[in-house]
Amino acid sequence: MTENEIISYITEYGVKAKKAANILATASAGVKNQVLANAAKLLIENTDKIIAENTIDVENAAANGMSVPMQDRLRLTPDRIKGMAEGLTQLIALDDPIGTIIEGYKRPNGLEIIKKRVPLGVIGIIFEARPNVTADAAGLCIKSGNACILRGGKEALRSNMAVASVFAEALEDAGLPRDCVQLLDNTDREIATAMMRLNKYIDVLIPRGGAGLIRAVVNNASVPVIQTGTGNCHVYIDNEANKEMAVSVIMNAKTQRPSVCNAAETLLVNAEIAESFLPVIAKELATKKVELRCCDKTYTVLSKLFLDTTVIEASHEDWDTEYDDLILAIKVVSDYKEAVEHINNHGTGHSEAIITDNYNKAKYFQENVDAACVYVNASTRFTDGFEFGFGAEIGISNQKLHTRGPMGLMELTTIKYVINGNGQIRQ
Amino acid sequence: MTENEIISYITEYGVKAKKAANILATASAGVKNQVLANAAKLLIENTDKIIAENTIDVENAAANGMSVPMQDRLRLTPDRIKGMAEGLTQLIALDDPIGTIIEGYKRPNGLEIIKKRVPLGVIGIIFEARPNVTADAAGLCIKSGNACILRGGKEALRSNMAVASVFAEALEDAGLPRDCVQLLDNTDREIATAMMRLNKYIDVLIPRGGAGLIRAVVNNASVPVIQTGTGNCHVYIDNEANKEMAVSVIMNAKTQRPSVCNAAETLLVNAEIAESFLPVIAKELATKKVELRCCDKTYTVLSKLFLDTTVIEASHEDWDTEYDDLILAIKVVSDYKEAVEHINNHGTGHSEAIITDNYNKAKYFQENVDAACVYVNASTRFTDGFEFGFGAEIGISNQKLHTRGPMGLMELTTIKYVINGNGQIRQ
Repeated sequence: MTENEIISYITEYGVKAKKAANILATASAGVKNQVLANAAKLLIENTDKIIAENTIDVENAAANGMSVPMQDRLRLTPDRIKGMAEGLTQLIALDDPIGTIIEGYKRPNGLEIIKKRVPLGVIGIIFEARPNVTADAAGLCIKSGNACILRGGKEALRSNMAVASVFAEALEDAGLPRDCVQLLDNTDREIATAMMRLNKYIDVLIPRGGAGLIRAVVNNASVPVIQTGTGNCHVYIDNEANKEMAVSVIMNAKTQRPSVCNAAETLLVNAEIAESFLPVIAKELATKKVELRCCDKTYTVLSKLFLDTTVIEASHEDWDTEYDDLILAIKVVSDYKEAVEHINNHGTGHSEAIITDNYNKAKYFQENVDAACVYVNASTRFTDGFEFGFGAEIGISNQKLHTRGPMGLMELTTIKYVINGNGQIRQ
Repeated sequence: MTENEIISYITEYGVKAKKAANILATASAGVKNQVLANAAKLLIENTDKIIAENTIDVENAAANGMSVPMQDRLRLTPDRIKGMAEGLTQLIALDDPIGTIIEGYKRPNGLEIIKKRVPLGVIGIIFEARPNVTADAAGLCIKSGNACILRGGKEALRSNMAVASVFAEALEDAGLPRDCVQLLDNTDREIATAMMRLNKYIDVLIPRGGAGLIRAVVNNASVPVIQTGTGNCHVYIDNEANKEMAVSVIMNAKTQRPSVCNAAETLLVNAEIAESFLPVIAKELATKKVELRCCDKTYTVLSKLFLDTTVIEASHEDWDTEYDDLILAIKVVSDYKEAVEHINNHGTGHSEAIITDNYNKAKYFQENVDAACVYVNASTRFTDGFEFGFGAEIGISNQKLHTRGPMGLMELTTIKYVINGNGQIRQ
């Protein structure tokens, strides 16, 4: 496509989305819930059709050399489609955040100022190969009153189109515009880039995917972005920690699901307990074959042991690396203050934990660590919309603008001031 | 400077700012207020020195052909410096937003989740020629616990440096790092661009200035931006409006201070009252020499009259233009719904008003107009942090991410979750 064709292609989506958003913004909770119920039903009814489209996607991907684990992420089964439908059904039970009066007051001149919760408007979501994101993101946007423009990965285009068409029908059946949920039918990179600069029609962009995708969106977008998901998380074990709890939290934070953003990547250990504690935790980590990348002091202690896993010396880059894998960097620090400094220098502002029984150290850690979620005596793995009780999640923000941490329905809203007067003019 | 030198120049500011921000974030309200009091005092004490530097700026600007009104904006007088000091003193009385517990709850697993208000961290502010912004922005950032990196205009560099050095001293005297407030001593455009991409050290960018500056920041920044100040505001006069109130609000919204973003730019008039109302308001606007740019119907009515001002036919561009001047576009619309549609198509989401005595129309207008501030029977000119009772203002957001409308101290904060456990791990 020429540059003009690209602009005209994406602008058409934008115009339709904005028009749909203005209608969806004032739809009642009842109508929005009806859309979700319709979509859940239609997903099940269309299982065969969706799987037929998905099978073509998977076959093409395999022919193009996609790895087997990636093919598995791309594949839809009746169970996975049922899971998507159940996700939508769960959203119905959640409170509608829209229309809440946050606060209101009267000014000395008699003006009544009311701060209300309203939808963001049009949300652009750029995501990678998993087609369940289409249903998930569309459901969250509808419930929070936002129109969305979805741009999925090339490999999942047929699957995504099949799921998106279910939403168009579900919307129409509830009397709302089909354009409340639109999926780009062209996955050219140039179109995605143009979408990132469609400020007139898109209010917010949320990238969902790996570090490369998020970096590309942050670097290229002029539309406001919510950056999600980069998590170089730490657990600091204080000399006054309960050691059993320390082992249990580290094992959970590192090994329960190592591929996710709230898993721990670096273990910091107080120098006083390094010689006694490091062998204990290392043996435990070795049972799960966690590779250990050690600072000098840690290496001196651990290299003497016979551990059934890789133990190597850490490089400078290790302190800044999100492995998302069964690898853990370990560093001995002189005290909790050095731990905080290390975290603020190397962390990504996601989730950080201290294990200690000392009140003052716990308080200092929570006040001085600059991150979305700061834990005392618990695993970093709890940073999650469901674990926080939001009942839903579109991602975990690790920027500071708009919101931080897990984002549920509330985080997909903004505010509007409505002001009632009786002829006030400014002096 | 080479590209490497630029990066190293701006990174040094970033490193210092982040270090200072970590200390300022936990400073007590008392200490922050002491800084403001110190700075107010030092501004007055250093009046002669600041004016000496400012005089050089103004002379250089004049020699370089700066217009006389722009020179006036650049010029500092003892009264203007006193005004800056008074602005800082007023901040002392305001509540410190930092540390508030927004909410907190216990999860079924016993985890206690607490949502706290914390500073954004490091705020970058890029602004144009008025040196009072230096004191104003620095004061707001200190009170809200944020370190700032200020980049002012080339023409005001000496004045800005003089004001910034007052803050360095005020901070030091209160025991806080001088680097809480830093001003770039090099105003090269390439450095400003590098600052807009310093994601590792700057949490939020706020441009303060004209449309060109704001566009440049939005288009070039990878750091999250709060877009401020573009205001193509409308007043819609309904057929059920109180006509005296309508005239009073229009005159106020258009002429009380036409150069600002919350001034009205387009008047929409219900067709039923067009013939009777337009001559009345046009005569009143003519007394202030407001140029009228009219739709066909309006022109048919007004061109018959002898008005002591310019009356011309509007072009398509007029509906999208923020004049910031004594010019008003006028359009006749069939009803309030067409008014809402026009506003949603041409407005910038800033401030919009309806004048009506009809409850249902007022409600429809407030629910369906997509803008930060939607007024019934009051002037758009009230969109302002002081008029809203915030006691301070850093700008007016017309994006939807983070906040909308006037931004005071509260809007310069973000949240942090602190989570207290007793060994919880995720199942």
